[in-house]
Amino acid sequence: MASDSGARSSAMDEVIAALRDNDGFVIAGHRDPDGDSLGSSLALGLALERSGKRVAVISADPLSAAYRRLPESGRIEVRDTAPEGFPVAVLIECNGVERSGVDGLDDRLVINIDHHANNPGFGDVNWVDPGVAATGVMIYDLLRAMELQISPEIATHLYVAILTDTGSFRYSNTDARALRVAAELVELGVDPAAVAEAIYENVPAAKVRLLGAALASLELLAGGAVAVMVLPYDVLHAGPGEADTEGIVNHGQGIDGVAVAALFKEVERDLYRVSLRSRGDVDVAAIAASFGGGGHPRAAGCTLEGSLESARNRVLEPVFRELEAAGPIREPSA
Amino acid sequence: MASDSGARSSAMDEVIAALRDNDGFVIAGHRDPDGDSLGSSLALGLALERSGKRVAVISADPLSAAYRRLPESGRIEVRDTAPEGFPVAVLIECNGVERSGVDGLDDRLVINIDHHANNPGFGDVNWVDPGVAATGVMIYDLLRAMELQISPEIATHLYVAILTDTGSFRYSNTDARALRVAAELVELGVDPAAVAEAIYENVPAAKVRLLGAALASLELLAGGAVAVMVLPYDVLHAGPGEADTEGIVNHGQGIDGVAVAALFKEVERDLYRVSLRSRGDVDVAAIAASFGGGGHPRAAGCTLEGSLESARNRVLEPVFRELEAAGPIREPSA
Repeated sequence: MASDSGARSSAMDEVIAALRDNDGFVIAGHRDPDGDSLGSSLALGLALERSGKRVAVISADPLSAAYRRLPESGRIEVRDTAPEGFPVAVLIECNGVERSGVDGLDDRLVINIDHHANNPGFGDVNWVDPGVAATGVMIYDLLRAMELQISPEIATHLYVAILTDTGSFRYSNTDARALRVAAELVELGVDPAAVAEAIYENVPAAKVRLLGAALASLELLAGGAVAVMVLPYDVLHAGPGEADTEGIVNHGQGIDGVAVAALFKEVERDLYRVSLRSRGDVDVAAIAASFGGGGHPRAAGCTLEGSLESARNRVLEPVFRELEAAGPIREPSA
Repeated sequence: MASDSGARSSAMDEVIAALRDNDGFVIAGHRDPDGDSLGSSLALGLALERSGKRVAVISADPLSAAYRRLPESGRIEVRDTAPEGFPVAVLIECNGVERSGVDGLDDRLVINIDHHANNPGFGDVNWVDPGVAATGVMIYDLLRAMELQISPEIATHLYVAILTDTGSFRYSNTDARALRVAAELVELGVDPAAVAEAIYENVPAAKVRLLGAALASLELLAGGAVAVMVLPYDVLHAGPGEADTEGIVNHGQGIDGVAVAALFKEVERDLYRVSLRSRGDVDVAAIAASFGGGGHPRAAGCTLEGSLESARNRVLEPVFRELEAAGPIREPSA
């Protein structure tokens, strides 16, 4: 269930007190920052700054091209050492100070804000609410409770946080509260179509070509229950920079009748990184773990040395076995 | 702007009176029914039936495989003549009785419910509200105003209507009201992730293969501002049944830096159906119209006879000219 609609928790009140009683905040999300980490950090930073506080919003890793298109995203400074003169560290979506990738935060007052259940509460002040879809929902509640002004720019970053963490309101964390907060953010000035275009419709051409190559390799096995795609070394390394393959395996998982999808990426010669997705009973995390990988039951990965044939056989054999154990395969629709 | 949040219009009150004062409703959406047409029709039908009315929900064209996965979708009868004994016709999202594709509706009392501005008000009772994102929002307001029970199944069909017509809350019709109604529907029992999976994650394998083939043909022209994809006759007709190419051209439009995307489909030998998308200043409807086609400024299509080379040249020449007239091309992000 969703958390109580905007009900104030005592943890939130402790965060509010720490924000009100101090000045000089360095705000950081996690490494390889996603939309929720960046959007929540920047929204909080801009709101605190407009209330008269000194704020630095930093990220150890660069922002994606999509994020750089958003208003005031240039306010996020990319650096891996914390600036001096900011006695309070606010960590967003980190399960430990080190997850930020930023050095020099430990000796400050640490405020820890996250919506992941596995957050151990490592801060001096901790507010962890696994009942919300995104940290952006928490920051929205926080700014409301602090009666800080939510400008259209701040609203946009909170909207990005919720939009991206719910996969455009499609993932299983999508709930009534996320949709209602999104509605309120639109009333505060967000242009939802412009945000969606910035986030989802500016795919690098190289990534689209990789998707095309992966789909061209598509094989359906086990009566259509298993989708396999391959990106060989030369294809994967055809473009400049690191190949962006995020989301490609989902196209296999999205095929009618498919229970398990696998993408084999030849990241080095005869070294395959395998992305696995399941939407049935097969626990792909267990299969990945048997090869030293990990993940969630429905999304996992592992890395295997050897030929493609060998990697395929080793990964797919337990997939077929588990599918058979799970019973008759659902036929694709006519 | 969104319409007033659920404010009762006199047009809605006339619909309510017609529904309360009569019995025997045949409800039909438009030909080639989309999620809003089907979801709104079925939600209204189920709610009226549970209030004790006699109802038939029909569609002249079959439901998509995705829609058939939804609860009670089997209640929609596929037929192109109206059943006898239902003196009232409720037309959803039709700009005329004939748009339903169903014969035998004219001589009945016609209730016309739509959210498209071009609806001419052809019914005996007309309720047209272009201010809402989807007809599903209107039906939600209607059921609320009539104090009819909104079961989880009814809520699910209304959610599908809103989800599909807003493109998962990404299109420019997405507004605060659509998001807020979606939130209320989730509170009424909708599982948003299950609905999204039913709608978006059961793509026929043949369609995924077509996407792969189209992406493999991707060319970027005019410094990356124009994306061109081709599906030759043999590829387009490789699978059984009619090729489903819906949405493929959007992958071209979604590439960073692309202003105009074109997909050339060889529907018959040397006969090309061209889908055009624009997200800049180029009016692709005007270009399509010059070849006897049509559409919206940002989404249009036309059909050309002749070789691929000839079709390409004729369509792309005005695209390049208009792009040049529109000024310097935005560079793709680094």
